[in-house]
Amino acid sequence: MNPFDAASPLDARYFFAEPEFFKKLRPFVSESSQIKYLSRVEAALVAVLADAGLCSQKIAQEVADACDEIEPEEVYEEEARIQHNIRALVNCIRRRISEEAQPFVHLFATSNDMTDTARALCLKEVTHAAVLPFLADLTTKLIRLARANASVGQIGRTHGRHAVPITFGFAIALYVSRLGQRIEAIKSAADNLRGKFSGAVGAYNALTLYRPQDPQELEAALMRKLGLKPPEISSQIVQPEYVADYVYALASCWGVLANLADDFRHLLRSEIRELRARSEGDPNSPIVGSSTMPHKINPKDFENVKSLWKAYMPRLTTVLMDQISEHQRDLTNSASSRFVTEFVTGFCYTVYRASSAVDGVEPDRERMRAILNEGKDPIVAEPLYILLALAGHPDAHEKARVLARQARVENKPLVEIVRQDRSLDPYREKMTPTNRKILEDPALYTGAAETRTFAICDLWEKKLADLLRQP
Amino acid sequence: MNPFDAASPLDARYFFAEPEFFKKLRPFVSESSQIKYLSRVEAALVAVLADAGLCSQKIAQEVADACDEIEPEEVYEEEARIQHNIRALVNCIRRRISEEAQPFVHLFATSNDMTDTARALCLKEVTHAAVLPFLADLTTKLIRLARANASVGQIGRTHGRHAVPITFGFAIALYVSRLGQRIEAIKSAADNLRGKFSGAVGAYNALTLYRPQDPQELEAALMRKLGLKPPEISSQIVQPEYVADYVYALASCWGVLANLADDFRHLLRSEIRELRARSEGDPNSPIVGSSTMPHKINPKDFENVKSLWKAYMPRLTTVLMDQISEHQRDLTNSASSRFVTEFVTGFCYTVYRASSAVDGVEPDRERMRAILNEGKDPIVAEPLYILLALAGHPDAHEKARVLARQARVENKPLVEIVRQDRSLDPYREKMTPTNRKILEDPALYTGAAETRTFAICDLWEKKLADLLRQP
Amino acid sequence: MNPFDAASPLDARYFFAEPEFFKKLRPFVSESSQIKYLSRVEAALVAVLADAGLCSQKIAQEVADACDEIEPEEVYEEEARIQHNIRALVNCIRRRISEEAQPFVHLFATSNDMTDTARALCLKEVTHAAVLPFLADLTTKLIRLARANASVGQIGRTHGRHAVPITFGFAIALYVSRLGQRIEAIKSAADNLRGKFSGAVGAYNALTLYRPQDPQELEAALMRKLGLKPPEISSQIVQPEYVADYVYALASCWGVLANLADDFRHLLRSEIRELRARSEGDPNSPIVGSSTMPHKINPKDFENVKSLWKAYMPRLTTVLMDQISEHQRDLTNSASSRFVTEFVTGFCYTVYRASSAVDGVEPDRERMRAILNEGKDPIVAEPLYILLALAGHPDAHEKARVLARQARVENKPLVEIVRQDRSLDPYREKMTPTNRKILEDPALYTGAAETRTFAICDLWEKKLADLLRQP
Amino acid sequence: MNPFDAASPLDARYFFAEPEFFKKLRPFVSESSQIKYLSRVEAALVAVLADAGLCSQKIAQEVADACDEIEPEEVYEEEARIQHNIRALVNCIRRRISEEAQPFVHLFATSNDMTDTARALCLKEVTHAAVLPFLADLTTKLIRLARANASVGQIGRTHGRHAVPITFGFAIALYVSRLGQRIEAIKSAADNLRGKFSGAVGAYNALTLYRPQDPQELEAALMRKLGLKPPEISSQIVQPEYVADYVYALASCWGVLANLADDFRHLLRSEIRELRARSEGDPNSPIVGSSTMPHKINPKDFENVKSLWKAYMPRLTTVLMDQISEHQRDLTNSASSRFVTEFVTGFCYTVYRASSAVDGVEPDRERMRAILNEGKDPIVAEPLYILLALAGHPDAHEKARVLARQARVENKPLVEIVRQDRSLDPYREKMTPTNRKILEDPALYTGAAETRTFAICDLWEKKLADLLRQP
Repeated sequence: MNPFDAASPLDARYFFAEPEFFKKLRPFVSESSQIKYLSRVEAALVAVLADAGLCSQKIAQEVADACDEIEPEEVYEEEARIQHNIRALVNCIRRRISEEAQPFVHLFATSNDMTDTARALCLKEVTHAAVLPFLADLTTKLIRLARANASVGQIGRTHGRHAVPITFGFAIALYVSRLGQRIEAIKSAADNLRGKFSGAVGAYNALTLYRPQDPQELEAALMRKLGLKPPEISSQIVQPEYVADYVYALASCWGVLANLADDFRHLLRSEIRELRARSEGDPNSPIVGSSTMPHKINPKDFENVKSLWKAYMPRLTTVLMDQISEHQRDLTNSASSRFVTEFVTGFCYTVYRASSAVDGVEPDRERMRAILNEGKDPIVAEPLYILLALAGHPDAHEKARVLARQARVENKPLVEIVRQDRSLDPYREKMTPTNRKILEDPALYTGAAETRTFAICDLWEKKLADLLRQP
Repeated sequence: MNPFDAASPLDARYFFAEPEFFKKLRPFVSESSQIKYLSRVEAALVAVLADAGLCSQKIAQEVADACDEIEPEEVYEEEARIQHNIRALVNCIRRRISEEAQPFVHLFATSNDMTDTARALCLKEVTHAAVLPFLADLTTKLIRLARANASVGQIGRTHGRHAVPITFGFAIALYVSRLGQRIEAIKSAADNLRGKFSGAVGAYNALTLYRPQDPQELEAALMRKLGLKPPEISSQIVQPEYVADYVYALASCWGVLANLADDFRHLLRSEIRELRARSEGDPNSPIVGSSTMPHKINPKDFENVKSLWKAYMPRLTTVLMDQISEHQRDLTNSASSRFVTEFVTGFCYTVYRASSAVDGVEPDRERMRAILNEGKDPIVAEPLYILLALAGHPDAHEKARVLARQARVENKPLVEIVRQDRSLDPYREKMTPTNRKILEDPALYTGAAETRTFAICDLWEKKLADLLRQP
Repeated sequence: MNPFDAASPLDARYFFAEPEFFKKLRPFVSESSQIKYLSRVEAALVAVLADAGLCSQKIAQEVADACDEIEPEEVYEEEARIQHNIRALVNCIRRRISEEAQPFVHLFATSNDMTDTARALCLKEVTHAAVLPFLADLTTKLIRLARANASVGQIGRTHGRHAVPITFGFAIALYVSRLGQRIEAIKSAADNLRGKFSGAVGAYNALTLYRPQDPQELEAALMRKLGLKPPEISSQIVQPEYVADYVYALASCWGVLANLADDFRHLLRSEIRELRARSEGDPNSPIVGSSTMPHKINPKDFENVKSLWKAYMPRLTTVLMDQISEHQRDLTNSASSRFVTEFVTGFCYTVYRASSAVDGVEPDRERMRAILNEGKDPIVAEPLYILLALAGHPDAHEKARVLARQARVENKPLVEIVRQDRSLDPYREKMTPTNRKILEDPALYTGAAETRTFAICDLWEKKLADLLRQP
Repeated sequence: MNPFDAASPLDARYFFAEPEFFKKLRPFVSESSQIKYLSRVEAALVAVLADAGLCSQKIAQEVADACDEIEPEEVYEEEARIQHNIRALVNCIRRRISEEAQPFVHLFATSNDMTDTARALCLKEVTHAAVLPFLADLTTKLIRLARANASVGQIGRTHGRHAVPITFGFAIALYVSRLGQRIEAIKSAADNLRGKFSGAVGAYNALTLYRPQDPQELEAALMRKLGLKPPEISSQIVQPEYVADYVYALASCWGVLANLADDFRHLLRSEIRELRARSEGDPNSPIVGSSTMPHKINPKDFENVKSLWKAYMPRLTTVLMDQISEHQRDLTNSASSRFVTEFVTGFCYTVYRASSAVDGVEPDRERMRAILNEGKDPIVAEPLYILLALAGHPDAHEKARVLARQARVENKPLVEIVRQDRSLDPYREKMTPTNRKILEDPALYTGAAETRTFAICDLWEKKLADLLRQP
């Protein structure tokens, strides 16, 4: 097969096309990996039976060895014959083992015990092996960017209009905190995923024949062996909320990435230019920005991040529709739930692109300062009002409003009007020198932006390190 | 105004039309309540300033009294004049208080400090006062139903086809567990909601003039006073993930309700009839089932539950789109985020309807038994295969398959064929009496359905009691 | 009831709060209007029976008079008693008429014949009375704006970066065309809505007793009387695609409004300022832009437009889920389909706000020219390359690329380098004077922006006039 | 590459796994086909230039030959170097042609002129070559099924409860009509797709240098050559509504398929069994229904249809979000719009599966009759009430209600009570013999089900034939 035969752009354009990314994700998210996971669960099942004394450890090993050898091609071939994917896998395993071992393969299990358990296992492992490391990498880059710019003044913007100042590092620290909390949410949802081993309708019908008192103990043993939590109660399927919680955690993290991408895109706008592409300086770069306009450098990595969010976020709705399954299961979630691993792949790819997008730009501090200086004069109205109030002025807000209006009407800098207004002197004397300076230069009116930036970076640097250390 | 003037069916048909429900929710979710919440936050702000020594407790009390008196009419009138809803509220408060107190109203705050804090407070309180009690009421009813039917056999259904048996209580216990966990998720998301008091761009610009070292301490004090957690870092707005998590928790709980409604609807189908309307027996009931078919009794409460899920679930997408706000805020979340309280109202109404829907039906145990008995014969294939395997049969699955096929071909009951097959005697002897009985009557093959039902009911009875006791 | 009691922000904040808007929409979208529409359909039904000779015209008139008098209060009261909304209405009608007339009310009909027909009628009429006029008003304003600015140069922007020039009118003309086509789509979907009169399962069971050969003719007569098209075939419900098409037409038009709002918002950004609020000049305006930053003027109408799009667009998913109704109907679309009229209300409100938002701003042509002049130099690369190619240069693109690079490296204006490059003279001579001027002043490189603007405005001015003339 | 390496289940499990389906769709929907389409548009562009006299037909042919040879591998390789996919393609074309021809490749065009035109062309062609034929095949099967069962009585079901009778063919005819109308909508949206050739900002900036009077004529010529309609006005991108309309047409058709799948699934339920799998009879079938319950035959094709609807329908939201593109384009639709061809693939696969699912089942007419006969007695209430009214009974509805109640209370068949009620004789005499028979056997009360079935089948047979004949 040719990779360009794929109908999904995720496969053709992003997954197959980036070898490093592909190598990292393939063991978890390919169709081939799904069969590996199913085989692992089948092997673990027999190992649990052996632990329980139902068969020998030798049989368990025999089955484990067989499971290791299974390739997707043969399973699909068998499925084409019998029209059942899990029974096809079981047949492939049984072919490889002794007659003595055969009865123990898939014993007590319904297909979906394997499918749901394999999915939970896969999602948990891809989270620890790829999702969290990719996110930690991005967040670490943002922490570095935030620290480096913790004191670099930038105009704050609300409604797209100049508000009061922050620092560029502070704007980034917000993303550190949002991403950090989403990372925790993703980890927590992944670690809460459940498998099951309770049979066709969830009542342990088959297992109870063997363990009438506590059939759920064998299920718990299987989960322990795989590093999963046992479920409370299930039907043929694991309660759908565990996967929904996980997909939601990814989707809501994706929204943070999309917001970051939009912010960076806008700061790269021609009229703003507070960010610039690192590659902009290289006249020998072979990179083409536009097929007709050779002078253009475009923020296409950030556009890609936003675009993938639009492509995937609405799919959470699929998962929420899959919460409904009639009676002990209606199976209309069979195809749709297969797309969850694709969702994870798309998410990881977005983080990966966001990470290289952040690498590709740098703040233009001169430009930030220029914009701030150009726009700062009317800002003084806010600190003036607060400082007058704190200094006991009887009508601080009105005084500030009148002076601001005077500045507009007379078309004079407000800072100068304030400076020359002698009636303010008694209040000015009560102000700290730092605060007096702010009235002279409102670019200094950045509040606690710098200290909060460092505090947030310290907090998440530590939390991330702890979180990644955990199994 | 006339309630039938409303354009929203939620208002006209559900909220205004059910006095008990309206009375319970109005203090939290009406537009009028939003203004009450904003007033409470404005009052708390001045109380915090008084605690910090910036103004007297007397002033704080004066402001609190004024806030108590605010009515929505006057705020809307003032807003019509000045085109700003929070400044309108502030003006209404200031009008009522002494000149001395006026400067402290809204001091240091940006409008959205109030709006976001009021929303968090409202959502947290409506959760504890209405969402959780409504859900607990429904879950308690389901626990009762599950216990009462813990041992009532019912055919399990997968693909809409008869599978192996469960008990009706077991099917209900699954909902107890799913709802229980969603209740925990909702409570956890509600208790994690945050307000803010960090000013126009989140950097505590104004507060830092007064408390340069730790402006965030005043924010924390305000949150404490209101029973909210302090935020880590914010822009003009609270990080949108807290509300998104909360709405997701509701949406995913709504999916459980929709699934329950579908299951109950289907059990009420003419061909199944394992459930029946309690009102069916009353020949004098004035209730009309159909405008042309007077004999019909319809499961319309369950239909309503499913329908409201369809109406509201997709709105989670709105909340996920609202995660994106350019720079320190772009304000395109202003109208859309107002709909969150409507979402809560719709959710509560659905729970309320689901609760009365559950009250309105009862299981028809005769019918459950009849269906089970009619369909049970082929079921024996599964326990036979397992029991033979456990008894050491060398090829148990094949043996069961052959006998099942013989039954189909000869059109004879499989149970009888099994009974008469002498080659099975040696294995039968190794089986427990309980298991032997299952081969005679596969309706007994209900696994651990009964014991698991009680275990789940015990677990959640206790958990719910604990959870509702918490503040 | 108090309007501030509403739980829906649409009701409390937008619908009830704007008298002009409320007055226009209330006859169509309130719960009260729904009952008026149902009454009209019930009256039309009896009129059709009279036309067919089944009853006298006098009876039809009697019923029509009764239907005119029905008030929602009494219907809701009766519904509370009998739990069926349409039978409640029928009872209210019957109470008012002679015994002789009573049998003809609702004869042959199932409730949903009335409900679906009333909805189609209401949606069609609100479209012609409000949706289309609101949209035409907005589009007319945009046509005026486009014409007035057809030749006002503006830098084009792709990726948020300066591309080649357009005119401001041209940017607006794109919206004229997009909105125009959506208006056609909305009208077409509205005029294609269907009612039904085929009974409980759609097979005209009752009508066939009376008209065995062509029961569908009575249905067609009812539709004609109401100005609706007859359906091809239905179950208990009208095929859901007609309403879905209509809601989609609105939703996709909403997306155009959201795009327009985003564009205008961004042009109002502090760094761009190519648009400005008309109110900005008035120092005595009582309007408050921010509760802490008195100098701010915010694009809040455009933010509202975008925000309402986010609030409503996802609800199309509800309508698509309502396409599924089991067998002859499952009724899980009962509550959800009531929200369609709210969708229409939200849409109309958004158009209304967009319209006043457009009124509230004006282009700052000085600023547009300044930005264009500042950014125009590198643009010359594109026309240079094309003109050289047209003039027979053997390697035009490479020549342009080399000169553009020289300009960057030497930090000199490209226009000047081009002007001084003598090797270009032979090609320059072959160029038209107009094209030579473009190489001197790339701000002139606006292509057909002006002529296309007028062409589009002419086209839609005529089309809109025609369209609104149609019934 | 291995097909099982794919991350998208659509690729791995459905597209690659079904050779017939793959073969049919690959020329349109693979990544490789996208490059073929882009090459075709590049070739057509030069052909248009030749027609206009700008270059020779020989050059146009040279370019066309080169475009024919392009393979995706080389384009991706070049893209990896220069980071621009369209310029990469242009480079690959230019490498193959004479120096003289090179300047004409891509002349006047911006990348997106090619991308959007290629997409429109691809979607239009895949619609005619695959989407419509697949749908016509399914609809034709349904027409056959409807005709064959036009007079086969079936109980109608509303609320999942028995209502009045239809025929099975009538239930199918509804799907014929719904699908037929969706087919028309899909064709109409496909034929309305547009390309563009108006350059980087849509104002024909480059083309105007060459054709100042009517640059849009060259665009129109390119569209004609490709069989597409010309656009009215565009920015860098084609107006997004054309593709949105197309995706909506597919999505809304998908909903009809999902509804059909649900209906068929439910008719296959163990308790209903009005449909059965054709394969059920074959004892030698290797097909496995369940990995533990060998007796089970499952409706998995219908489950798959519903499941794919859940997986894809929500993605319409992506397309609606892509309506927003800032200014002349923001490029955040770049990745997301690539998924449109995947959407088409998923849709075609669903139709293909639905078609074989319909083939796989057959109605069990005995069972339909049995259910109808068992449930028919109370139905008589409706025709009784109508017939009495038509016969002049003064209070027909009340009379029917009283008798129905008597039947319930006395637990006697209503038909019998009616038969024995002498007071009805005068009315009975006025009834037609056909109608009198209905009172004796309400199973006959199928209205116009049979005649409407044939009418709908005739209508769509003809319409489909006409529609498929059109180019």
